[in-house]
Amino acid sequence: MLDDVLARIDADLEASLDRLFALLRIPSISTDPAFAGACDEAASWCAAALAEIGFAAAVRPTAGRAMVVGHRTDPSAGPSVLFYGHYDVQPVDPIELWDTDPFAPRIVTRDDGSKIIVARGAADDKGQLLTFIEACRAFVAVTGRLPVPVTVLLEGEEESGGESLPPFLAANREELSADVALVCDTGMWNRTTPAITASLRGVVGEEIVISAASKDLHSGLYGGAARNPNHVLARILADLHDETGRVTLPGFYEGVPDTPEEQRAQWAELSRNDDLLPGVGLSIPAGEAGRSVLEQTWGRPTAEVNGMIGGYTGAGFKTVIPAKASAKVSFRLVGTQDPDKVRETFRAFVRARIPADCSVAFEEHGASGGFRVDLANPHLARGRAALTAEWNTEAVVIGSGGSIPVVGQFKSILGLDTLMIGFGLPDDQIHSPNEKYELTSFHKGIRSWARVLAELAE
Amino acid sequence: MLDDVLARIDADLEASLDRLFALLRIPSISTDPAFAGACDEAASWCAAALAEIGFAAAVRPTAGRAMVVGHRTDPSAGPSVLFYGHYDVQPVDPIELWDTDPFAPRIVTRDDGSKIIVARGAADDKGQLLTFIEACRAFVAVTGRLPVPVTVLLEGEEESGGESLPPFLAANREELSADVALVCDTGMWNRTTPAITASLRGVVGEEIVISAASKDLHSGLYGGAARNPNHVLARILADLHDETGRVTLPGFYEGVPDTPEEQRAQWAELSRNDDLLPGVGLSIPAGEAGRSVLEQTWGRPTAEVNGMIGGYTGAGFKTVIPAKASAKVSFRLVGTQDPDKVRETFRAFVRARIPADCSVAFEEHGASGGFRVDLANPHLARGRAALTAEWNTEAVVIGSGGSIPVVGQFKSILGLDTLMIGFGLPDDQIHSPNEKYELTSFHKGIRSWARVLAELAE
Repeated sequence: MLDDVLARIDADLEASLDRLFALLRIPSISTDPAFAGACDEAASWCAAALAEIGFAAAVRPTAGRAMVVGHRTDPSAGPSVLFYGHYDVQPVDPIELWDTDPFAPRIVTRDDGSKIIVARGAADDKGQLLTFIEACRAFVAVTGRLPVPVTVLLEGEEESGGESLPPFLAANREELSADVALVCDTGMWNRTTPAITASLRGVVGEEIVISAASKDLHSGLYGGAARNPNHVLARILADLHDETGRVTLPGFYEGVPDTPEEQRAQWAELSRNDDLLPGVGLSIPAGEAGRSVLEQTWGRPTAEVNGMIGGYTGAGFKTVIPAKASAKVSFRLVGTQDPDKVRETFRAFVRARIPADCSVAFEEHGASGGFRVDLANPHLARGRAALTAEWNTEAVVIGSGGSIPVVGQFKSILGLDTLMIGFGLPDDQIHSPNEKYELTSFHKGIRSWARVLAELAE
Repeated sequence: MLDDVLARIDADLEASLDRLFALLRIPSISTDPAFAGACDEAASWCAAALAEIGFAAAVRPTAGRAMVVGHRTDPSAGPSVLFYGHYDVQPVDPIELWDTDPFAPRIVTRDDGSKIIVARGAADDKGQLLTFIEACRAFVAVTGRLPVPVTVLLEGEEESGGESLPPFLAANREELSADVALVCDTGMWNRTTPAITASLRGVVGEEIVISAASKDLHSGLYGGAARNPNHVLARILADLHDETGRVTLPGFYEGVPDTPEEQRAQWAELSRNDDLLPGVGLSIPAGEAGRSVLEQTWGRPTAEVNGMIGGYTGAGFKTVIPAKASAKVSFRLVGTQDPDKVRETFRAFVRARIPADCSVAFEEHGASGGFRVDLANPHLARGRAALTAEWNTEAVVIGSGGSIPVVGQFKSILGLDTLMIGFGLPDDQIHSPNEKYELTSFHKGIRSWARVLAELAE
């Protein structure tokens, strides 16, 4: 039966691509109000696609962009799944760096014969979310049903803050309940090795503004006597790390799990073939000493200064002692590190370094905890088996240093664990000009989801 | 005769203000190439003003902004003087903190009835340089001549490095020769006490740019493994001072004279009544421990971070690890500290703190040594007598923490000592929003110069 479904997917690929191109032609840029109509159009398109394959589907308004929700509950015994994707896309600027219209999708054949789909949203996330829907389509076409109960939830604000999602989840907790969540918004380990992302880091964002004199001062007339907030800020930011790369906030590492030796060894091995740093002109891991790149980014918390500014930063030179200096600092969290506690500890750390005549103001920019799927989760094993079968290469369980808020919200609001399965590649140029998605990712992605659904139903 | 000149100055004040306003309306910001045309316009305006009162005046091109030179050599026996001022001004940012257009000068009457002239350049240095020219104008109008031979030299790069001045002085040494130089770019001791500034600090300006990855990175995906140049920069800037406020560059204090005990005591006494810090909302000297505010600013060298920037500094938050971070740092020098040696020591200090995968680029922004007039200089005594007569308060001889490179260049290139006589006040907000110049400073400044010229001719 699964073989019939896979054969149907292969036979239907051209039509699947036609459907993907139709969705890619809709410029559903969520951050720009000028494209609100296009977002509505994309939501309607998705709801219609779900309805066409037997889902009870609807566009559901929110205070922001609409949600699309569809249910198909065939008589079946397997675990119920909640699938998540997002139909909105990033803006296209700098538009002049695109080779062709971002919303005129096309297939490009590369020198090695491989094919890519080029368009804004091809990989993030329209191509990815359609791999799941097309897998459902094939199952329905061949068997008249889905092997497990499925709810599809598609969001339209993932690229612009996602503020409507938590209240929507809370208001529809019952309707969205399931046994496991599936998210298709991540990547493969490499071109040939499929992956399930089982951990994410949380994030705490914080902005600090240090003020001293009531105005900018002349550094000749005042220099040596007046407090310079640039110096105060530099001292605070420098103090955040010790010489081994550890974060110095008191108690920061409470709740950070030791990475099991076996895991560390596996990550060290993967790190050896990893292109993360070489791909951006770097060669030496700069984080905590004695840990691999993958452990530093997947398994360890960090503090990063994302922005800092003080004084005159234009062309030429201006001998000023500024009245203010500011920085944006983010912390990535793992294990059970408490975002609120990290924020409070950071604020105390800063306040302790504010000298006489200075003051500091803080502004909060979001908070979420780390996330990790229990490696003993039975759905995880089934997902790995399905991916391994499709790609004929052992699927790896990886982490991600990034933060995908919806995964934490599924856990905290719906009580759901999430399997993040995706088919993106590091060179997909998401958020950049000439975004692409491999034709192989799309085709074998559809096949992979068919296998996952069948495996979950076993 | 002097009384007639002073009366003429009083009668002509409105017309003098009209001329000042015309000059203030020209946005001659020298550090920004977009205002090169305005600098030319200001130079032409000044040359025309000098020609109008009988100077042989011309705009003299340089590799940068033009010089204005004017000579008027009436038959007279007194010492010849070289007067210096600058027609260029500082940038206006942060523009949103100005109450009105910086280049729309206006008179504001304060609650106590006193009046101020508000505009960029009102005090630094257009208002000041015109006090001298207007004094000459009154002398010429009343007596048909000047009491001593006068050369006026006006520069257009004082606020942006002044690179064209030394070669110009060297190339025109004969033409610019004089017995004493007069500079009007400093301040009074306070609102009622005139001052001659007899010492200045030197300055070394240096810009550093630290580069790591080949592009900006996502701090979730890369954070903890990729080198963050913000962190490298913060460490370097924090390391510049120890916890007692001393600069940590090796050998930095070589050539710094001990302040004589008597001098320290006098400065400590003056510091007690000094409004330097309270005037800008500060209360505690932030420099080297155990030294008064005036010693910190007049007698000690410093390192100040004038500007720093790295990563995302706009509204909201962006989780980026930037490819670059940069800072502008200046050192103020006293005694015989060698500017070139300080620059090289700083560069070595920075290079020693650049980790693997990072590089640093340096850009030079000017250099000058400290300066001090011999207290036995006879022109100094005449200047003090003239100021004391005008203000009816004993003129004091003070230092300044600022740097006026031209004074050192007059000494080294032309062999000239300089009397720095100016009428600015600490709250003039030079280099800051809402720069102002007291109407009293302008009016009595003109009268003061008339008295100085008469006194020098005795």
